[in-house]
Amino acid sequence: MTPDPARFLADLHALRRFGGDEATKGVRRRAFSAEDVAARDWLAARFAEAGLEARIDPVGNVFGLAPGRSLLVGSHSDTQPEGGWLDGALGVIAGLEVARAAREAGGPPVSVVSFQDEEGRFGALTGSSVWSGKLALADADTLVATDGTAFAAAREAVAARAGDFVDPGRFTGFLEMHIEQGPVLDAAGEAVGVVTGIVGLRQFTVTVQGQQNHAGTTPMAKRADAFAAVARISAMLPERFANIVTPSSVWTIGHVTLHPNASSVVPGRAVFTLQWRDIDTDRLDRMEAAIRTLLDDVAAETGCAIRAERLRQDLVPQPMDAGMQVHLREAAEAVAPGRWRSMPSGALHDASNLSRVMPVAMLFVPSIGGISHDFAEHTAEDDLVTGVRVLAEAVRRLG
Amino acid sequence: MTPDPARFLADLHALRRFGGDEATKGVRRRAFSAEDVAARDWLAARFAEAGLEARIDPVGNVFGLAPGRSLLVGSHSDTQPEGGWLDGALGVIAGLEVARAAREAGGPPVSVVSFQDEEGRFGALTGSSVWSGKLALADADTLVATDGTAFAAAREAVAARAGDFVDPGRFTGFLEMHIEQGPVLDAAGEAVGVVTGIVGLRQFTVTVQGQQNHAGTTPMAKRADAFAAVARISAMLPERFANIVTPSSVWTIGHVTLHPNASSVVPGRAVFTLQWRDIDTDRLDRMEAAIRTLLDDVAAETGCAIRAERLRQDLVPQPMDAGMQVHLREAAEAVAPGRWRSMPSGALHDASNLSRVMPVAMLFVPSIGGISHDFAEHTAEDDLVTGVRVLAEAVRRLG
Repeated sequence: MTPDPARFLADLHALRRFGGDEATKGVRRRAFSAEDVAARDWLAARFAEAGLEARIDPVGNVFGLAPGRSLLVGSHSDTQPEGGWLDGALGVIAGLEVARAAREAGGPPVSVVSFQDEEGRFGALTGSSVWSGKLALADADTLVATDGTAFAAAREAVAARAGDFVDPGRFTGFLEMHIEQGPVLDAAGEAVGVVTGIVGLRQFTVTVQGQQNHAGTTPMAKRADAFAAVARISAMLPERFANIVTPSSVWTIGHVTLHPNASSVVPGRAVFTLQWRDIDTDRLDRMEAAIRTLLDDVAAETGCAIRAERLRQDLVPQPMDAGMQVHLREAAEAVAPGRWRSMPSGALHDASNLSRVMPVAMLFVPSIGGISHDFAEHTAEDDLVTGVRVLAEAVRRLG
Repeated sequence: MTPDPARFLADLHALRRFGGDEATKGVRRRAFSAEDVAARDWLAARFAEAGLEARIDPVGNVFGLAPGRSLLVGSHSDTQPEGGWLDGALGVIAGLEVARAAREAGGPPVSVVSFQDEEGRFGALTGSSVWSGKLALADADTLVATDGTAFAAAREAVAARAGDFVDPGRFTGFLEMHIEQGPVLDAAGEAVGVVTGIVGLRQFTVTVQGQQNHAGTTPMAKRADAFAAVARISAMLPERFANIVTPSSVWTIGHVTLHPNASSVVPGRAVFTLQWRDIDTDRLDRMEAAIRTLLDDVAAETGCAIRAERLRQDLVPQPMDAGMQVHLREAAEAVAPGRWRSMPSGALHDASNLSRVMPVAMLFVPSIGGISHDFAEHTAEDDLVTGVRVLAEAVRRLG
């Protein structure tokens, strides 16, 4: 079962031209934009050419269906507002190429999919959320993008050609190849990552209430400076996490707003997000406990009132299917001996949603410099080809 | 030379009604607003009633002039967008009351002034900057408020009644009574502050350039997090300043902006202001050197590039006139024995500008809770009366 590298790369570059920007090498193909809908129509045609039954569902997910029960392989083809050319697109075209190679070899039946709105223009991983049953269509229809476009209105772009939702029960599992979107494989000079699981995520929105004051006349000893408290929390986290985390655990204060945010005023209020991710639920719990203790300690030290709220739903860690991983590891070792590793995924993918309804597994290829969600996102063509070969070999072994 | 407390308080409350807000107890009387211009006309009339020659100058400063050479006593009557009722207004009405008491006692000639735009709607202490020669009128006329109003246009509101600029040479000195705008006197239960000097001010705008990245897929060890660097700088300042500062030194990170400021993105860039104030130039220098060293150290530790710029002009410390201070201290001890202290001013005042052209000195009265630039700004009437008595006694002693 041999994928055709030239055909694979040609289709990858063809998809890139939908919303592609010659100057930046990036892509603008937001969910349900004209470029996205045109790309989905093109994908449907390519799926049909490959002998698959092309179907677009009511929320814009595009399938190329093999008859009977089959393995589903794919990803998403919508992009960030300023996106890279491989994020999602790689997994869709790799799935198509593997489906073609399988048919040519009289091999196992393989279906292909491009999910809609993985990048969250409307909701989080909207297309696969609806398809997997995590999000009711009626609820998805209440989603509104930040530019005011309603999901219900946007999906009318495919209404004329949409068929019924595909039954998840016809698939034996889901396999997704994706760029790593991080620096680990690239820094190690490795070609492939076999994903062990998708990390869990928790996030606090923390409000620090101090005392706004004149920055010239208020002695240091009489201040309750909300920003100084945030800074102390940030600076103390590594120490408080030292006996809890692994080198793979991550935590981020990404968003901070101060009030009044003026150079001559002691900040009276600060709001920030603190997000942490890990593959292990117990570790997430222990990080959370350490955070709560730290917030209490800093409140006591600084005289600020500190309150943490969960405004974002927790995501639980999602292990990848153990049996599928065995085949992926064997395929990786066969195709790229000694040049692969097992590793968690720090980012969410459509596979997270599909794990509700079938076994799932993922493969990574390197991201040069770890760059993603950026026009400069790239992977060497050799590594793209190695990836599709590992994917094909894994599908062959999965039978 | 005895001030009349009832007359003094009545005029203070009368001035409060221009732009006064019954609900909040605060005042909205921004420079050259209708309320501000009406208040200045009212002051001119009160000055004339008190036997002084009323004059409004081309930039809206309002004088009540005693003939010949005189001591100038006053402050400003414009307010913050949401201001307190005493900030500036106290010194103007106290000056008027002392001028009246001096005339009634056949005492020393006292002129009164309310400067324009001390609060910086257009520039910094604009009215006294122009009058003292620090800022050329032509340059002031290029100033534009954040709402787009040009100073040149705004001052047309007084053009019809404006006389020539008053010659600073006719004054023997300037005395300004002001609320402390800080917590020191109130916390100590004292009634009066004799100001030793106005602190110097320096400010850096610091840009931290890290590496924007995905908050899920970027290991902690591979991050250059611009916010974490800012937090480290903030947290390390007390230690780096420990052998340099006094309890009166202040420093503030008041303004911080992150890019992209998103909860799932490692901050790639941060810009913040770091302002420090002290009465002593050598100490300001040593704080600056410590800051520069800290920025270099944090850049090396975090892998971020850190650059500091001076976007705000330094203010040098301004000692108050030693001879005038002697009389103020004696007056304070006579009127409020044991209930006063010498102290620096952490805030700028019109007296800073006037020190260019004449001897200046200042008196403080307590701010309850240290609150200012806020509707809740307040001082007990007993303390207001004590203040005007000390002021009158000092003027009597100054002769």
